[in-house]
Parts: sequence; structure tokens; C-alpha cells
Amino acid sequence: MTGFADLGYARVDTDRESRQGLPEVVYGPGKQPGEIAGIVGELLARGTGPVLVTRVEADVAAAIAVPGGTYHETARLLVWRPAASGSFRVCIATAGTSDGPVAAEAEAVAAAIGLSTEVVRDVGVAGIHRLLAARDELDRADAVIVVAGMEGALASAVGGLVACPVIAVPTSTGYGAALEGVTALLAMLTSCAAGLTVVNIDSGFGAAMAAHRLAQVVAKPR
Amino acid sequence: MTGFADLGYARVDTDRESRQGLPEVVYGPGKQPGEIAGIVGELLARGTGPVLVTRVEADVAAAIAVPGGTYHETARLLVWRPAASGSFRVCIATAGTSDGPVAAEAEAVAAAIGLSTEVVRDVGVAGIHRLLAARDELDRADAVIVVAGMEGALASAVGGLVACPVIAVPTSTGYGAALEGVTALLAMLTSCAAGLTVVNIDSGFGAAMAAHRLAQVVAKPR
Amino acid sequence: MTGFADLGYARVDTDRESRQGLPEVVYGPGKQPGEIAGIVGELLARGTGPVLVTRVEADVAAAIAVPGGTYHETARLLVWRPAASGSFRVCIATAGTSDGPVAAEAEAVAAAIGLSTEVVRDVGVAGIHRLLAARDELDRADAVIVVAGMEGALASAVGGLVACPVIAVPTSTGYGAALEGVTALLAMLTSCAAGLTVVNIDSGFGAAMAAHRLAQVVAKPR
Amino acid sequence: MTGFADLGYARVDTDRESRQGLPEVVYGPGKQPGEIAGIVGELLARGTGPVLVTRVEADVAAAIAVPGGTYHETARLLVWRPAASGSFRVCIATAGTSDGPVAAEAEAVAAAIGLSTEVVRDVGVAGIHRLLAARDELDRADAVIVVAGMEGALASAVGGLVACPVIAVPTSTGYGAALEGVTALLAMLTSCAAGLTVVNIDSGFGAAMAAHRLAQVVAKPR
Amino acid sequence: MTGFADLGYARVDTDRESRQGLPEVVYGPGKQPGEIAGIVGELLARGTGPVLVTRVEADVAAAIAVPGGTYHETARLLVWRPAASGSFRVCIATAGTSDGPVAAEAEAVAAAIGLSTEVVRDVGVAGIHRLLAARDELDRADAVIVVAGMEGALASAVGGLVACPVIAVPTSTGYGAALEGVTALLAMLTSCAAGLTVVNIDSGFGAAMAAHRLAQVVAKPR
Amino acid sequence: MTGFADLGYARVDTDRESRQGLPEVVYGPGKQPGEIAGIVGELLARGTGPVLVTRVEADVAAAIAVPGGTYHETARLLVWRPAASGSFRVCIATAGTSDGPVAAEAEAVAAAIGLSTEVVRDVGVAGIHRLLAARDELDRADAVIVVAGMEGALASAVGGLVACPVIAVPTSTGYGAALEGVTALLAMLTSCAAGLTVVNIDSGFGAAMAAHRLAQVVAKPR
Amino acid sequence: MTGFADLGYARVDTDRESRQGLPEVVYGPGKQPGEIAGIVGELLARGTGPVLVTRVEADVAAAIAVPGGTYHETARLLVWRPAASGSFRVCIATAGTSDGPVAAEAEAVAAAIGLSTEVVRDVGVAGIHRLLAARDELDRADAVIVVAGMEGALASAVGGLVACPVIAVPTSTGYGAALEGVTALLAMLTSCAAGLTVVNIDSGFGAAMAAHRLAQVVAKPR
Amino acid sequence: MTGFADLGYARVDTDRESRQGLPEVVYGPGKQPGEIAGIVGELLARGTGPVLVTRVEADVAAAIAVPGGTYHETARLLVWRPAASGSFRVCIATAGTSDGPVAAEAEAVAAAIGLSTEVVRDVGVAGIHRLLAARDELDRADAVIVVAGMEGALASAVGGLVACPVIAVPTSTGYGAALEGVTALLAMLTSCAAGLTVVNIDSGFGAAMAAHRLAQVVAKPR
Repeated sequence: MTGFADLGYARVDTDRESRQGLPEVVYGPGKQPGEIAGIVGELLARGTGPVLVTRVEADVAAAIAVPGGTYHETARLLVWRPAASGSFRVCIATAGTSDGPVAAEAEAVAAAIGLSTEVVRDVGVAGIHRLLAARDELDRADAVIVVAGMEGALASAVGGLVACPVIAVPTSTGYGAALEGVTALLAMLTSCAAGLTVVNIDSGFGAAMAAHRLAQVVAKPR
Repeated sequence: MTGFADLGYARVDTDRESRQGLPEVVYGPGKQPGEIAGIVGELLARGTGPVLVTRVEADVAAAIAVPGGTYHETARLLVWRPAASGSFRVCIATAGTSDGPVAAEAEAVAAAIGLSTEVVRDVGVAGIHRLLAARDELDRADAVIVVAGMEGALASAVGGLVACPVIAVPTSTGYGAALEGVTALLAMLTSCAAGLTVVNIDSGFGAAMAAHRLAQVVAKPR
Repeated sequence: MTGFADLGYARVDTDRESRQGLPEVVYGPGKQPGEIAGIVGELLARGTGPVLVTRVEADVAAAIAVPGGTYHETARLLVWRPAASGSFRVCIATAGTSDGPVAAEAEAVAAAIGLSTEVVRDVGVAGIHRLLAARDELDRADAVIVVAGMEGALASAVGGLVACPVIAVPTSTGYGAALEGVTALLAMLTSCAAGLTVVNIDSGFGAAMAAHRLAQVVAKPR
Repeated sequence: MTGFADLGYARVDTDRESRQGLPEVVYGPGKQPGEIAGIVGELLARGTGPVLVTRVEADVAAAIAVPGGTYHETARLLVWRPAASGSFRVCIATAGTSDGPVAAEAEAVAAAIGLSTEVVRDVGVAGIHRLLAARDELDRADAVIVVAGMEGALASAVGGLVACPVIAVPTSTGYGAALEGVTALLAMLTSCAAGLTVVNIDSGFGAAMAAHRLAQVVAKPR
Repeated sequence: MTGFADLGYARVDTDRESRQGLPEVVYGPGKQPGEIAGIVGELLARGTGPVLVTRVEADVAAAIAVPGGTYHETARLLVWRPAASGSFRVCIATAGTSDGPVAAEAEAVAAAIGLSTEVVRDVGVAGIHRLLAARDELDRADAVIVVAGMEGALASAVGGLVACPVIAVPTSTGYGAALEGVTALLAMLTSCAAGLTVVNIDSGFGAAMAAHRLAQVVAKPR
Repeated sequence: MTGFADLGYARVDTDRESRQGLPEVVYGPGKQPGEIAGIVGELLARGTGPVLVTRVEADVAAAIAVPGGTYHETARLLVWRPAASGSFRVCIATAGTSDGPVAAEAEAVAAAIGLSTEVVRDVGVAGIHRLLAARDELDRADAVIVVAGMEGALASAVGGLVACPVIAVPTSTGYGAALEGVTALLAMLTSCAAGLTVVNIDSGFGAAMAAHRLAQVVAKPR
Repeated sequence: MTGFADLGYARVDTDRESRQGLPEVVYGPGKQPGEIAGIVGELLARGTGPVLVTRVEADVAAAIAVPGGTYHETARLLVWRPAASGSFRVCIATAGTSDGPVAAEAEAVAAAIGLSTEVVRDVGVAGIHRLLAARDELDRADAVIVVAGMEGALASAVGGLVACPVIAVPTSTGYGAALEGVTALLAMLTSCAAGLTVVNIDSGFGAAMAAHRLAQVVAKPR
Repeated sequence: MTGFADLGYARVDTDRESRQGLPEVVYGPGKQPGEIAGIVGELLARGTGPVLVTRVEADVAAAIAVPGGTYHETARLLVWRPAASGSFRVCIATAGTSDGPVAAEAEAVAAAIGLSTEVVRDVGVAGIHRLLAARDELDRADAVIVVAGMEGALASAVGGLVACPVIAVPTSTGYGAALEGVTALLAMLTSCAAGLTVVNIDSGFGAAMAAHRLAQVVAKPR
């Protein structure tokens, strides 16, 4: 018993579900549809949890011949065997409508792995009253995922309002000095609001997985 | 009732304790000892929680005339009215001995704000068996703070082993291509282990505060 | 008539006062005290407006033997023949106490060239109610200079609240990913609040001079 | 009365016109035509000022089914209900013909929001007499928008000639070390001409909006 | 006798085989098919070793009219007159399936120039047991080529396990803060495992050539 | 007499030929064919020297309706009224065949403005004997233009061999750490060979124009 | 048996000597003299190979109370129990005298771990005949370590001459565009000479350790 | 006859004077006074031209025991056996007084190697009339060295005025976005004035040596 299945083109980490509470998630780019199908089949056979493939374009998704999957187009996500919705509540707040696809990935992944989600859109600080009007949604959340590009100031504003964990996702929205999301990334890392944490640019996936880790520690018997 | 005390040189956020469960933490650099003393006095008078000043050199700390404070030299931290130790367990893992001061800040801040801490030192991946031998410490933690400079690979290794939240702190340890911690920062943000979150370079403080947010959501009645 | 005075080590632009409404301002670094004294003397002799030297340390200031000057220590500014205070109102808002020296330069330069100034300190977005409580000061300003380091989010918040010109000054406050002010600079340039303008890192001087240009266009007869 | 209209996919800031003198401007990229149409409709219904959508390609513009709009192809701008032309005069100066599209955006936005515009093209410093020949246009302006790529030296040259506000727009014109406009941006921020202000790369929009803020303060009753 | 053949468009280094044990390898990009054919013909005529062209797309490869060549599609490599397989054993380890094309180039070049190769795929540190299960392959290697993108932590893990030379190849796998492979490059250069060496991003070719230099020194009579 | 012709879309610097010995050269990108035709017509009418348009793709070149022009496809250059070949000898040396297009631009521009050219191709330092074999060409040159990408080491090697001016042109040849030519640029600027000068990445045009300035000073009567 | 000794402040990897042929090398910066002494003592007691501490300033070295050590001042290296000199020959070539300290570290570490060393100084490409005169030293080497700052072109020149492994060490020698060694690093990574490998900036240590890995594979019985 | 003198710590390139018209120039930093003295002695003994040591601080200069040298303090230059002044005229123009030390190095090196120099100081574009007033000095020059920091716009302005070669030296004058001279460097490389060439940041030495190459080609018999 090695803890993985060697398919030649991949060593599927079949031990991960017992180790971390979720099967390995498949990173789509650079893999052939046949390879993805093989890995997905192995994960479905070896475990019981949800099986996800991220960053899959529609044509690739259509070529993956494993029955039972659902494709989320905006999120570019494939899901088999989604988890039942649990009690951990994630609020996803976006600075603008253009941050939508990243928020969609965060939402779809979070839902697929059993988190309860609520989305508040277009509450950037250029009209701060829009954010202040969302206090109820923020206050009832167990964690807030902030999705923002350009200067990413929404993360600081949310971080100053709520007591719960804030996971900031910089997006590549913007142009010029936005530097493909690097500016938002750096800004979120240096926020004057204490205790924010940050994931990679455009990684709605990473934020949802971080929230899953939170949900697990909350669910741990004490 | 404004929610802050205007000292002229500072607007002390006296509302923060009720809003976020902790008084405002004072960022030391660029402030005069008298200004720090004034702010600390105001926070002690207006709230009941721990009062902290970060990044204070020993000579500045000595010049701050507010009784009852304790100075942690390696952590460069001043603390008044530390919180009682709670049940939320944070494990702080360092890649090398040179990451010590940043880990010390994380530990001292975490302890001062009521988290229970345990430190595992010098478990970098160049000798991965040292990390594998620390599985017990990692497994009983509610959150792991990984403190690592150079290439920061420890964050990925820990992230692949544990199910709980991992907060990665890049440090400026190293030289040349380490780019004062930027390399570790970028590496941690792009970890192949899913769901890691990252704070600013050398910010043991930020990691401890992020853990405090976790502790609060764990403690929330359900 | 050449429009300048050739001192050998400098060509003093004696035409600037008639061209732009203010004598040339002397940039201190890299000049000998004797050179500065020579230039200042020439400016005092050839024009009638205020004469300023920026970024002068106290010991250099003391060595400049031109009577009648005043030294502003925090602002590192030398001033001769300050202008009378005019009706153009500049509000200078800082994110934190650590941004104080840059704000001091903006304030001292603005006052010396005849602007009316008001300073609101420590209104960073981590406690947004502190900024909202300063609406009166913001509303009566003809222009707002926002001085902020770290992620510089205050510029976006102010930019969303006021209708008047906002001049954002990124500061080098912060560490790690703050990149000596580059992060705040990039963030301010990509603000989601429309119509902000930005000057160089730590350039309180630049912001005050930009405000002077505004004051001149306001004062222009129509 | 919340100050915004919640369309689900967007929270339209209906309060902005009273707060800042102009309705919210819609940032086109990343939005569906239907979403843009919805937002535009809301803005037309709730306010009285000009409604603009920026960075819209021709095919997207054609798909937005809101009557009464005008499309400016070079500027990639959609406008409904343009403002009447006011007395505030903006001179837009470009370094070269290749900076034309950015200047076109500045001009079209400025005109749509009620500023009076004049454009001086191709006056880069490689033939400085071309700029000196434009002294009349520069002198009668209330503000100058300088649009330049490559090394952006035109901003410094103009900044040294005029007394009024100068808003510098770096463009991505050029190749190699021009770094997609970053070089011009940095150069404009460090200009030896005092009191210049800078907006994001290629942001003719941002410059026009900054000029609008100037126009408002000039129009303020004193 | 000049040591090169001057074809006008190229000076073919015909001396290289005697100087370094291998004919010059042709870098494909930017060359016309006819030019490549000319150079290959010259190398085949003047020497006896394997002739390679790298980074050739399929359509270009098809247009090169020199008989006897083999095209490796994933590796984008053309080979004439491959060397017999020698005794020097190279193990190529990849972090993920997406690093496959770079590993394919390393493998195909290494095989063509006479090295013995073995590939271990998908052993990234997020599931470290997969790497530990490959100890046999690692231990019998004379050199290990580690191919990894994202944060590149596999290089450090392998570097800590084996005693033989480790050649790290950063790949451009990943997004956002992965910065097209720069993050993996920097991380590998600052590895806490001593004695790693690094080649250019995505350069499977460079790693194989470095291994060839090793093989030559091992084969040197002592 | 203004020294320029104002076409509305361009201010053609008609004074430049008398000032600098060559008419203005037209930068092609971002201009419409009709605009280019207008400017070219003006330059042909107002002066007597060669008229050039750079960086023009073949389809744009075909659309420019000004008779008498010649199009150099590899160089992407349009030329009217080329100068007679003079006595100033420029040797253009390239590191590899892939640097060909940039060298072609340098050669075509140099020839069009009356310089005598000689090209030595593919003499990169990986086979230094190829360069040493070109000593005759180098020694008879009045200036050497070195065209090299990747690490750009050829500039240093040539700079150490010849006494005449060396103009280094970094190219974007290479991948990964070559950073689109930035690495070669930085390397050439920091060459250990004294007195090299450098122009922008891929700017064969800039190098030829720099050589023209040299030719003029050589031709100056003494 | 855990494979390490836990000193509290450090987990000394006592297994490394059997795993990789050398005891762990101690990285000096950021460690207290007492900590270094403790680790050195442990390594001396648990193994039989050479014990090294790198990057130790003279005053720190003097404070480390472990008898039998030797301090190399230029190399900033402490050594106990150096290995006997073996048959693997390393030639260290420097571009200039200013690269001396880095070469000294490479030489001292290599000697301490049993490699045979020879140093060729000041053979930069600005006078290429100096390098060509060192062909004997280069030809008899089993590996060449090239130490060069500024543009680092020596690595390419050596790489084109020798058949054996070349380990390039960029140094921080130079100023301005040398960017503290980053330029040399990038240049070496993109060398036109195939099969070079590179280590971190100023890491003479890293190069010597890489050579040790080579020596071990050469010494492996076949 | 090898063409160099091997002093152990240095290989002095004694062939350079015949090859390039000037003895090797000694780069001071990182060399011991005794080493410098040894190299200087060798150069004085083996050749007849001027011997220079650059970037030498006053205390190091005082410790170099070779009679007959002259130390230029602002230029940080040591000179033995300066050349007689020739007919090649170099005009050195500075943007501001703060660029003085770099200009001083250019001037002192140029004079020592036999060029005729003239300096025009403080003619930055913020007061362009100061530059226009220096037309005579510019027009009689055989080459212009432009020394400028901040945004470096003076290079473009001069480049547009003169016909002769322009060598641009970016300086580290300025702060914040000036990025230690990188901004001026990038700006000069992307100048809209054609045919400028650029040397390393703060390298007055490099500019003077480039001018020497020009002088040699001018002096070449034709």
C-alpha cells in the first residue's frame, strides 16, 4: 500500500482524502483530456469525496469522457460527486463586476467541497456605502473571501470591519500599473488591516481551499 | 460617541475591541516614544484587552513611560495586559535557526492575544525526516504558522501533510536571489499544496493576528 | 536678458517666478551649503516670492549662511520670505502616524507658498469610521492631499467621497512587500476611484506644488 | 434609500452624481453587453448627467441595446446624454501621432463631461520648436493633459513652461525598454518640473476625470 | 583550417565536436527551414556525432528537407544520427504532469546524445510520499534532473535526499505569482539544499547538456 | 517660417534635415497608412535627404501610396530617395542567426542614410574562434554594431578587441531568463569592456542612427 | 534513532553524512555564537567528516569556543576536521580581482571538503588572450567554477572552450545596471554556451558543494 | 610574449595600449591598496599612456604608494602620466547641480586621456531656455555627454538639438520612483530623439571612454 496510484503519466495521491479531508484536486492546464479522465476515474474509484478539475476550457471539458460530471463554465470547473452543503458559511465579496469569473471559481469550488456560500458583488471602495450596506452578510459569515483587482483596497476595508478570517484574492482586472494583478497582490499583503491572508492572483480555487481548511478546524471535536 | 479618541497626532480606534475582539495594535516605526505612550495609555483606559506595540527597538521601548509593560527583545514587542491563554493551538514551524526572530514575533504576539503556542524549529526540507518527526506537533495544532526564508519550500511540505489552516510567513533570510524575502513570498503564493495562505515578508505579527481571526470563528457559538 | 543667472555651479532660473508664479525651488541633496547659499541669495535678489530649499538635514541647514530663513525640522525644509496665506484650502489626510514626516513636508511647503492648510491624521481604512468622521474637513477643502504608505487604500476611499481634486502621495512606510513605497504608488495609480492623480513616493513637496498649480487656475480671472 | 441600485450582478452607485457631480462611469472590460445595458439603463433612469462606458470594442458596443448612445471608435467610448460644453479649457498635448488613441479617449471623455477641449499633436521634444510654437494653446488652457509614451519627456518640458495644472498620461507607445509604458510612467513621476501629477498608463479617461475635479473646484462659488 | 564553415547566414562551428564531444546543437527559433537544413547538412558532413535541432514546431520540422531525421513532437526536437546509449544514468523527476513537455525535451535530448534515462513523474511535495517511494530510481541515478514549475520545491526535496548532482529546471507551469517560471527559478537558486545547480526556465535542453558534461568527466580515464 | 509642417495629425519637423543632417524618420506603429503617406509626401517635398519609415509590416507598406519607395521585408523598412554610399564603414556583427532581423534593420537603415556596411554573422562567444577569424572585418570598420540576444556576451568580446566605437544592440532572442531582451540590455550596460554604448532592445534603427552621428563628426572639416 | 539531534534551537541533521557524503554545513548569519558552537560540537561528535560554518565575520568566529577550528578570513569560513585532498580537480576562474572574496569562499570550501583546487585570476573577456593563455589549467580540470560579476560574460567564454562541467557563480561586483549581481545571474542562465549550470549570487559555497556532488559521482564504483 | 603580466592577484593586460590606444584602466572597488599599486606600477613600466584608477575613496588613494599620481576628489579618480590635450572636443551637460560628481568623473577621465572638455551645468528641461542659451557650446562639440538623473529628459532635448554623437549617462540622483537611476536609464534608452547611446548608471567613466573611441576614429587617417 503506497498511498498513490501510478498511472505512468501521473501518481494519483489516493491517500490525500484521509490525510486532508478532500481528494486531490486536478489542475487542468497542460494535461490531455485522456490523462484527466484517467486521473478522475482513479479518484472516483479510490475515494468517496468530491472530485474536481480546475481551469478547464469548455472544449476540453467536453472531451473528458467520465460520466456524472458537471461543468461550470464561468468558473471553468468540472465537478463529480459534490459534497453536501455544510454549516460553514463563506461570504464572497467582489470589488467590481469584472472580478466575476474569479469569484465564480471561488463560489463553485466552495460549494462543491461542502461549504455554504453567499456572494456580495460590486462593493468596491469608490462607493463605500455599498459595502457598509452589506454588513449583515459580512457579519453572519464564518470567513470572507475578498475578490478584487486594480488596487485591491476592498480587502483592507473588509479587514477593518469584520472579526472573522479574511482571505484576499487579487485579480488581474485592470491595466497598466495594475501589472496583471501584481499590484493588488502587493497591496493586499501590506494591508493596514491586521491578520488578512492572501492567495495567488486569480486563484478563487486557492481561497475556497483555504476556507475548507478553516471549516475543518471549526468542525474538529473539542 | 465617535468610536475613536483624537489625540491630535493619532486617532485611536477605540471601537476596534468590540468590533474585532482585540484593541488596535500599535505599529512602532516612525512614532515618537511620547506618541506611543499616549496611544497605549488611551487603549488601556478605553478597553480591557491586551495592548501591543510591534517592531520596537530596545532603546525606544525603554523610553516609553507606561507602567506594567513587558518587552520581548527578540520579538521587538511591547505588551500590556496580556490575555489568558485559550484553547486554540498554534504550531509555529521554522525552516532554520536564522528564521528565529520572525518566529519569536509570531509566538510572542500569539501568546499575548491568548493563543496557545508550540514551536518546532529547524525542520527545513533539506532534511525532510526532521519535519516528518514532528507529525505529532503538527497534528494536534488548530493552525500551523510556517516561517521560512530562502526558497520557502517548507510551506509546501507542511501544506501537503496537515489538514488544518496553514499561514505561511516568508522571511528575508538568505542572500542574492532570495531578494530580501520576495522569492520566498512568491514561492509560497504559488505552492502546489492547495489552500495555503500567505502574509507579508517577516510578518510574524500578521500571522499571529490571522490565527486570532481563526480562533474567534472556532470559538463562535454554533 | 537670458532669464537665468549663471553662477558657474548652477544656472538659476530667474524667469520662473514670472512664468509660473513661484521662484525655482532648490533641491537640497548633493549640493554644498555654499552652493545652496549662493542660489538662495540670487533668488532673493532677483524675485519677490518665497524661496525654499527641500530635503535639507539639520546640520546642512545650519551651515547655510543666508539670514532670514526658517528651518522646519520634520519637513526638512528651509524657507525665506514665505507667502501670505491665501484662500485656497488644502486638506492633508494621512493614513497613519508614521506618514507624518511626508505630511509635514506637504504642509510646510503649502503654507510657505501661500496655501491655507488643514491636517487630518491617522484616518486609514482599517477603521473607516475615523475617515467618515472627517467629512467636514474634506468637504470644505479645495483639494485633498492623501498621504499613505503600505497599501495606500486611503486614496481610494477619499477619492470615492469627495468631488474636488485628490493628489495622492505614496509613502515608504511599511516593510517587505511594501517595497519602499512602490506598492502604494502602484495601488494609487490603479485606484478604482476615478480622477485621482499621483506624485512621486514620499514627495510631500510635489503634492504641495501640484496644489499650487490648482490654486493659480482657481485664482485666474474669468 | 440606500444610495445604490442592486441589480444582482452590480450595485450601481446612484448616489455618486450628487456626491461627485457625475454619474458612475462604467468600466467595460469583463462585463457582458446585457450587464452593461442594465447598468446604463439604471444610470439614465436615476440621474441626469452624462453616462459613459469606457474601453468598449466596436462589436460589444453594437450589442448594447440602449437607445441614444454615441460610439467613439478611436476612443472606444460609449456616451449617452453628453453634458453641455463648459468654460473650463483643457489642452491635450501629444508627443507623437502614435499616442493618438489615448489622447482620443481623453478628448472624448472630457467633451462628454462638459469640458472644453483643444488638442495639440506631435510636439515631442526631439523637435522642441514644435512645442514652443504651441505656447498660445498652452497659455490659454486651465489645465494641460500631456499624453506621451517612450521616455515621456514632453511632460517635463510642458511642466516647465506653464503655470497651470499638468496631468501626465504615460502611454504604452514604444518597445523594448519602454516596458509597456512603465518607463514613461516612472519618468513622469520623477520629473524635474515641479507639481506635475500622473495617472495610470494609457488612461486618457483618468486624466479627463482629474480635469473634471479641477473644473468643479474652479466652478465652486467663492 | 578555420574550425568553422561559413554558410553566409551562419558560421557552423565544425570544431565543436572535437572540442566538447558533441557537434553544435541548432537553436531553431528565428531560422528559416532552408537555413536549418543547410546547417544540419554541414554538421552531418563534417562530423560523426548526433545532430539536433531544438524548439522546432511540427510544421517547420516537416519543411526541413534533410533525410534521416526523427521528430519528437512533445519535445519539439529533431534528431539525426543519435548516439548509442551509454552507461551514465540520468533520472528525470517532474513535480506534476503539466511539466511534461519540458521533461520530454530533457529526455529526448539526453537519449539522443547517449545518456541512459529514466523518468519519474508527478512526485511534487504536496504528497511527499510519492517522492519517497521513488528512492530506488533516485539512488541508482548518476545525476537527477528536477523539472518543476510553480514554487519549484521539488528541487529542494530531491536535493536533500540524494548525493549525486542535481540539475534543476524551473518551468513556466502555473499562473499569477508564478511569473512565467521566474518564481521557480529564484526558488531553486536559493534552495536550502546545498549544491544544487540551475538552468534557464523551461530548458530541458540545457539540463540534458549539463548532464552530458557530467558524463564526459565520469568517462574520462583516471 | 515655423520649422514644421502642421498636417493636423502630425507636426512634421521640416527643420531637422538642416539641424541634424537627416530628415525626420517616421516611426510606423500606431499610424494609419494615409497618415504615413502624408508625412512622407511632406518630407519629400520639403527636403532633399532620404526618407524612411520603420517597423512597417508588409500589408501596411503596400497600402502607402507614395511612388518611388522601396520596401525591405526583413528589416520592415520603407525607403525613398536613399543617400549615396559614403566612406564611413560600419561592421555589423551578430551573435547568432536568430538575431538576423534586427541586424537587417541596422543594415538597411545604415545603407539608406549613406553609410557603408559589412555584416559578419553568427560569431557568438560559444565558439570564440569564429569571432577571432573576423579580425579583418572588425579592424577596417569605423564603428562596430554588435547585435546579440540571450546573454549578449558578444558585445564584451568585441569591445575588448577593437579600438573604434562599439554600439551594442540587445535583441529579444532567447526565452525564460532572457526576459525579452532585458538581460542582454543589462549585460551590455555592465560590460567589463570599457567605452561600449548601448541602444534600446531590438533597435537596429537606433544603432544605425548613432553611427550616422559618428559619420557626421568624422566628416566635419577640421 | 531519529536521524537528527534536537538542541532546541536547532535540529542537527546527523544523518546527512551517510546520506550525502558530507555533514550538514552550518549557515552562519542569524545564529548566536553559542548556537553555532553547540551545532558544531554535535556534528563533530556524531560524524567523521569536515565541519564547516559559512559567512562568519571575524568577531563572530573569535567568539565560537570550539577548539581545533581554522578561520579563513577572506572566505569568511570556519573549518574543523578538513578532508584529505582527493583527486577531483576543480579550476576556479575569476573575471576580475574584485571577484576575489567569492572565489576565496569557493576555494576554501572546496579544499575543506577534499577537492583539489587551482585558481586562475583576472581572465575576463575584455582581454580574451588572458583566458586563452589558461587553456592548460582549464583542460586538466574535472570541473570549472567561473566567478564573475558585471555582465558575467566569462561564463559563456569558458563554456565554449571546455568539455567538462561548468558551474557559474554570479557576483555582486559592479554598480548601477549590475543590480547587485542579478544581471550576471540572468546572463549566465541565458548563456549561448550549452550545458552551463548556475548557482546563487556570491555563492562560492554553493559552487563548491555542486563540485562535491560531481566528485562523488566520479568516485562511484562502476 | 603573452600580452599580459601575471601578478598572481591580477593578469595585467599589457597588450591593451597597442590594441585600443589606451592602457587598461583599473577598477578600484574590491582591490587592496597594495594590489592597486602593483598593477599601476606594471602599467607604468610596460606602456607609455595615461594610467587611471577609478572609484577610489580618498583614504584608499592615500595608501597607494606609487609616486607621481594625482587624485581628483570629486571624481574619485587617480591619474598618472595624463595625456596631452587633443583636438577632440567633448561638451558635458548636466541637468542639475546634484549630478555634479558623475560629471566630474566624466570630465577628469576625459581630460586625463587627452580629450578637450567643456562643461555646461544645470540646464535641465524644467527651464528649457537655459539649455537653448548653451547652443554655442553644444554646436562646437564633437560629442556631447549628457549627465542627468530623475527622469533624464535632458538627453532627449539635447539629442533633438545637435547633430553630433550624444552619450547619455543616467545618474542615481532623485528618490522614490527614480529607482536609483534605473528610471533615467530606461528613459534614455527609449528617447524619441534618434541615435542616442547610453552607458551604465553613474558611469562618467564609461562615457569618457566611449568618447575616446570616437576621438580615435576621427583621428584615423583617411
